[in-house]
Amino acid sequence: MADAVKVLKDGSVTSAKGFVAGATYAGLKAPKEGQLDLGILLSRQATATAGTFTTNLVKSPSVVLSQRHLAGGRAHGVIANSGCANCCVGEQGLRDAEETTRLAGMHLSLQPQELFICSTGLIGAELPMALIRAAVPKIELSPAGGHDFAKAILTTDKAPKEFAVSFEMDGATAVLGGCVKGAGMIHPQMATMLCFLTTDAAVDPAYLQEVLREVVDGTLNMISVDGDTSTNDTVLLFANSASGSPVIRRDTPHAARFKEVLHRVCAHLAHEIVRDGEGASKVIEVTVDGARSLDEARLAARSVSSSLLVKAAVHGNDPNWGRVMMALGKSGAYLEEAKVALFLNDVCLMEHGMPIPFFREAVVATMRRPTVRFRVQLQVGNAAATAWGCDISAEYVHFNSAYVT
Amino acid sequence: MADAVKVLKDGSVTSAKGFVAGATYAGLKAPKEGQLDLGILLSRQATATAGTFTTNLVKSPSVVLSQRHLAGGRAHGVIANSGCANCCVGEQGLRDAEETTRLAGMHLSLQPQELFICSTGLIGAELPMALIRAAVPKIELSPAGGHDFAKAILTTDKAPKEFAVSFEMDGATAVLGGCVKGAGMIHPQMATMLCFLTTDAAVDPAYLQEVLREVVDGTLNMISVDGDTSTNDTVLLFANSASGSPVIRRDTPHAARFKEVLHRVCAHLAHEIVRDGEGASKVIEVTVDGARSLDEARLAARSVSSSLLVKAAVHGNDPNWGRVMMALGKSGAYLEEAKVALFLNDVCLMEHGMPIPFFREAVVATMRRPTVRFRVQLQVGNAAATAWGCDISAEYVHFNSAYVT
Repeated sequence: MADAVKVLKDGSVTSAKGFVAGATYAGLKAPKEGQLDLGILLSRQATATAGTFTTNLVKSPSVVLSQRHLAGGRAHGVIANSGCANCCVGEQGLRDAEETTRLAGMHLSLQPQELFICSTGLIGAELPMALIRAAVPKIELSPAGGHDFAKAILTTDKAPKEFAVSFEMDGATAVLGGCVKGAGMIHPQMATMLCFLTTDAAVDPAYLQEVLREVVDGTLNMISVDGDTSTNDTVLLFANSASGSPVIRRDTPHAARFKEVLHRVCAHLAHEIVRDGEGASKVIEVTVDGARSLDEARLAARSVSSSLLVKAAVHGNDPNWGRVMMALGKSGAYLEEAKVALFLNDVCLMEHGMPIPFFREAVVATMRRPTVRFRVQLQVGNAAATAWGCDISAEYVHFNSAYVT
Repeated sequence: MADAVKVLKDGSVTSAKGFVAGATYAGLKAPKEGQLDLGILLSRQATATAGTFTTNLVKSPSVVLSQRHLAGGRAHGVIANSGCANCCVGEQGLRDAEETTRLAGMHLSLQPQELFICSTGLIGAELPMALIRAAVPKIELSPAGGHDFAKAILTTDKAPKEFAVSFEMDGATAVLGGCVKGAGMIHPQMATMLCFLTTDAAVDPAYLQEVLREVVDGTLNMISVDGDTSTNDTVLLFANSASGSPVIRRDTPHAARFKEVLHRVCAHLAHEIVRDGEGASKVIEVTVDGARSLDEARLAARSVSSSLLVKAAVHGNDPNWGRVMMALGKSGAYLEEAKVALFLNDVCLMEHGMPIPFFREAVVATMRRPTVRFRVQLQVGNAAATAWGCDISAEYVHFNSAYVT
């Protein structure tokens, strides 16, 4: 079955049938050629919708309002802005989020509750509503608008991150696509900084939420750029049934299939985020197996992929595996040092908790690749997990030392 | 009472009566003028001893052996080396730790169990026992040897970190002094990377352990350089009664007094560690009050002081307080955004969860000071805590990208 999943050329959030999108420049970000900072993604047909949101207790009112609208169960789309997080601005934040969905609703002839809102950018500044009021009516929606929408949600990202696949189900061809923004403040605890997914498959809303939760936990929640969890993390998955595919429920034969496709798209987008981490030059992939539980495997893998000392060692092509052991030991996951085996790019550096003398220059050479892989065998259980991170460079520090200056 | 505590000029671990120390160059670190890498700290009189150790599950056998010896309750001193962590080397690590305390015991006419061992340096290399065997007999101990001992435990630290005070109790003058190493892999969960404390006060061993635990939790356990917890963290506190002061027990009037003195010394040494963090140019002090519990106050303060984005903002004198709110919100401590007040170097930036417009240039100017202070009022309880960290610089990245290369 898996081979029937096809990656679409120029895939986007509007690759799935029935989705349209568009964006404009409202003036929330610094002006430059082709700049976009306010976008709408929409299905004319009502969609089943699932969402996961930041667990940060300091939460953008845009997140709060979207969580409320999600409780309604069915929706049509989302309005998203970059340049301003609409966070830490007191009660005005919720009023502005409400007005923004109202403005979009008027523009689209929809109820405000049928739309979500997502914001990303600087924390602590109010949404410039005068600019948004002027800009919303200018947004033109089209089936080709997915790319513009993907651009409109970026902040410090170097490039848009989009992906879509098609897959067959009982003769009907369905599509699942998505776009994402990342760059900084990336250590999602529940979702990640703005990820939008669309499918024209028909999915039962209860199953949609369940499968999104499960897939996000193993993909977008397993990445880290800097260990800092954003106040605005949001993943939204819209399913509008436009493909004519059979309805997917927890107990239907297509449930596993849909999950596999969703995992593929989310994993791809998650990798794109770490590849484009602020100042990052390499991806770090950490696989831990033999853990006592999935939670512990994830803890351990994430502890290594987000350790500052591991990130710095990878940046310098330095096979300083002692730092990996340190990060495993501090993670909270159970381990017995004498059982641990550790591989760096498939070279075994440690077995039974003992270092194996290795040909250093050969390992250093493998570390120059764009992805550096650590594989850890704990050998105390059967659970496995993979986490993704990126190296840390001097550029990261320079960049984040002068973000608002 | 507090004014009777006097800071001693050139204070060290041998400022307290009855303590001697010395060090030599064994060849564990790269040779240079005045290099020392193996030291002994000793009380000829048996001491009551308290200790706290790393909670990292990957633990140096030097830590394991010291924990065993601590269970004995009374001891004479410690042998400490830098240049090699004696960690992740399998069973040989414990054999080497045992042999090292045996060698020191022979040199000092003591039983090996009367001595602790501490190691710091690169993880994954065996202690070069041939060098240690040759070097131990060369260590000469004297009451002036505290400074050499403090030098012998350093790795990437820029300078030794020592401090001692004297205090009166019932007419007897007692002294409490200490030295510490820090620099990198500093985010202690239970103790910190090698801290040695000595006093000639007489302290009941049970109270000694209790008060050390309590003070370390509020001082050395509240610092962070890079969020990474070492495999070798150890704090040892020796009390040898040589001052002739009355025995301090939990229920004696001097218990609180001794705790106050111990807190002062530990806090001073903790500050020295963050001041000398790898690549650090500034200290970050974060005080959180109004938390629901002490644990939550500590969680919140530590989350801010160790956030990579906060550290980068401080490095660039950038009053990007949104990052402080993000770090508070992700910390796990309960808060209500609408109650939070936030001060940066005494300037109120936020009250009732709402930003207060501030004169940016004035705040930026205060951030050029060597210590940048954040004060957070959560206003949901009565608990308070302070955490200390340092900024992150490009130098940190350069340094840690080539530690073994």
